[in-house]
Amino acid sequence: MTPSARRAALRALLPAREVDALLVTDLVNIRYLTGFTGSNAALLVHVDGDGSSRFCTDARYRSQSAAQVPDLERVEDRACARTLVAGAAVGRLGFESDAVTVDAHAALVDVAGDTALHRVPGLVQRLRTVKDESEIDALRAACAAADAALTDLVDAGGIAPGRTEREVALDLEDRMRRHGAQGPAFETIVAAGPHSAVPHHRPTDAVLRRGDLVKIDFGALVGGYHSDTTRTVVLGPPADWQRELHDLVAAAQRAGRDALAPGADVVAVDAAARSVCEEAGRGREFLHGLGHGVGLQIHEAPLLARTGVGVLAAGMAVTVEPGVYLEGRGGVRIEDTVVVRDGGPEVLTATTRELLHL
Amino acid sequence: MTPSARRAALRALLPAREVDALLVTDLVNIRYLTGFTGSNAALLVHVDGDGSSRFCTDARYRSQSAAQVPDLERVEDRACARTLVAGAAVGRLGFESDAVTVDAHAALVDVAGDTALHRVPGLVQRLRTVKDESEIDALRAACAAADAALTDLVDAGGIAPGRTEREVALDLEDRMRRHGAQGPAFETIVAAGPHSAVPHHRPTDAVLRRGDLVKIDFGALVGGYHSDTTRTVVLGPPADWQRELHDLVAAAQRAGRDALAPGADVVAVDAAARSVCEEAGRGREFLHGLGHGVGLQIHEAPLLARTGVGVLAAGMAVTVEPGVYLEGRGGVRIEDTVVVRDGGPEVLTATTRELLHL
Repeated sequence: MTPSARRAALRALLPAREVDALLVTDLVNIRYLTGFTGSNAALLVHVDGDGSSRFCTDARYRSQSAAQVPDLERVEDRACARTLVAGAAVGRLGFESDAVTVDAHAALVDVAGDTALHRVPGLVQRLRTVKDESEIDALRAACAAADAALTDLVDAGGIAPGRTEREVALDLEDRMRRHGAQGPAFETIVAAGPHSAVPHHRPTDAVLRRGDLVKIDFGALVGGYHSDTTRTVVLGPPADWQRELHDLVAAAQRAGRDALAPGADVVAVDAAARSVCEEAGRGREFLHGLGHGVGLQIHEAPLLARTGVGVLAAGMAVTVEPGVYLEGRGGVRIEDTVVVRDGGPEVLTATTRELLHL
Repeated sequence: MTPSARRAALRALLPAREVDALLVTDLVNIRYLTGFTGSNAALLVHVDGDGSSRFCTDARYRSQSAAQVPDLERVEDRACARTLVAGAAVGRLGFESDAVTVDAHAALVDVAGDTALHRVPGLVQRLRTVKDESEIDALRAACAAADAALTDLVDAGGIAPGRTEREVALDLEDRMRRHGAQGPAFETIVAAGPHSAVPHHRPTDAVLRRGDLVKIDFGALVGGYHSDTTRTVVLGPPADWQRELHDLVAAAQRAGRDALAPGADVVAVDAAARSVCEEAGRGREFLHGLGHGVGLQIHEAPLLARTGVGVLAAGMAVTVEPGVYLEGRGGVRIEDTVVVRDGGPEVLTATTRELLHL
């Protein structure tokens, strides 16, 4: 799908919001709608078509924007959003009220003249939830780089007693780059022993020890798209409680994946996995939601959680990542990146979900 | 300076803004004021002192927040800002209107009851412009890691014809990590030949060639603090135009550094460097501002530019980075990270500013 086709899809949604145009200021949304990857821009999508739409960035990006956004009229100014609003010449202009700050909004009102500004949050994010095949290809490439890097790391004995969490994290990130990632999709989590019970632990100089659970949550960035995987391994033969914990989370994760289908309610998908933990008396130790959309951002819509809203559709890419955390002892999380499909979910992350003894 | 002392400094500014408390939701500001490094939090700083102040994060960060924020009452909820506003019990509550979106503000108004919300932008950012010695130590460590990495890269022959921009960038980032960086401070720029004329070029698979100018803009992240350096080198003996361009930018950069003093107007500092380029007939090819503050963020206040506002103070950390870009041919930028001091500027980046022929 070309940026132009995406803008056409967005235009089709504007009449229902009763606006003549949408001012897009969220940079990820701008990238989605134009291909532009710079750090300062605004886009006005006009209901009449690309001929009435405009793109603005500043002088630093003159040649880059000419190459990336050849198909729109380009305006050059540092105050991109203000410039496009001042020249909008429409009666009702939507703006991304979930991205524009209170101060920025006041500055837009100052230059809006006869143009009325209307809150239109989340419209591009909603389009972004359903990925086209070129996006799924990018996600697949990101997942493949991550899978290959973890396989290399395991084969090289890189997850072993004596190494620090930080060393393992850097090693894994290096290997992702060698497999084609532009970089990590987010700050890699390597959490050993009791640290594995901290959901969002940052790697430290703590040394991995025999008997530790080691939780590794990592992703690769390829072509702007993020992969997201978690595996929890054990150093040496697992203790009974470690095996039981891993079995429980694996069962919950399977139930979550199996619940992914077009039309499924996101709360029900979360519940499918959560109920497995609750029935084992571990509901309180499952400290977060089941998963989230993933694409141009590592966290995007939809949210698979008790507080989520909406139903799944074919083409959505989401994570499925239940975790159970026993404070002071250790925790297990298992996570895949999965595409919702009509014929059943397509799991993009291929690394085994068996408990590895390293 | 402890987080508690920083909160005391903030409290002292609240009466002038006529608020009883400030709701802090910007995560970098929260890190500055508490030490908390998680991804979801809010902080209410009460004019009466820490006994009336409150910190909120969600269950994922239970143990992390207990360790990082032991000195404040902690509340646990996913909707951090709403929870603190609902329980604020103050008449006039300031909020960061430069960080809170229009939608988030509406949600706060919904739960504010008798508490009136007032726009108070930029207050913590203003405190953050003046670094204490512990922050300057972190900046110094970040600059040292970046300097050491570039020296290593040059000594190893890593900037050479035949390598791609991307290979050089990854190599440099790896070396920064080996010298103690948690990672790059931002996406490393390596721009060869005509690409050097693009201010914010992203590394590609383009191959470096003999005769190219190669512009390298990079930084290290250490303890949350960012360094920022640019050097432009030439592969082989420089052509006359390359040497002249480098001499011009070096002279402008020196003039910019020399202008850094407590009390100096930021527009005048920009002009000190810009006038050197203008006198050489290259003012139009200096496409951006002279520099920016640097610290917990790679770009922060103050802005050294024609559009900047305010004067410098001792302890501010800024970049000085003039650049002249000849489209289609090549460009030169030279950049240091510098601390404003009473006795004259302290340059933290030590790599030579001579034109290196590699």
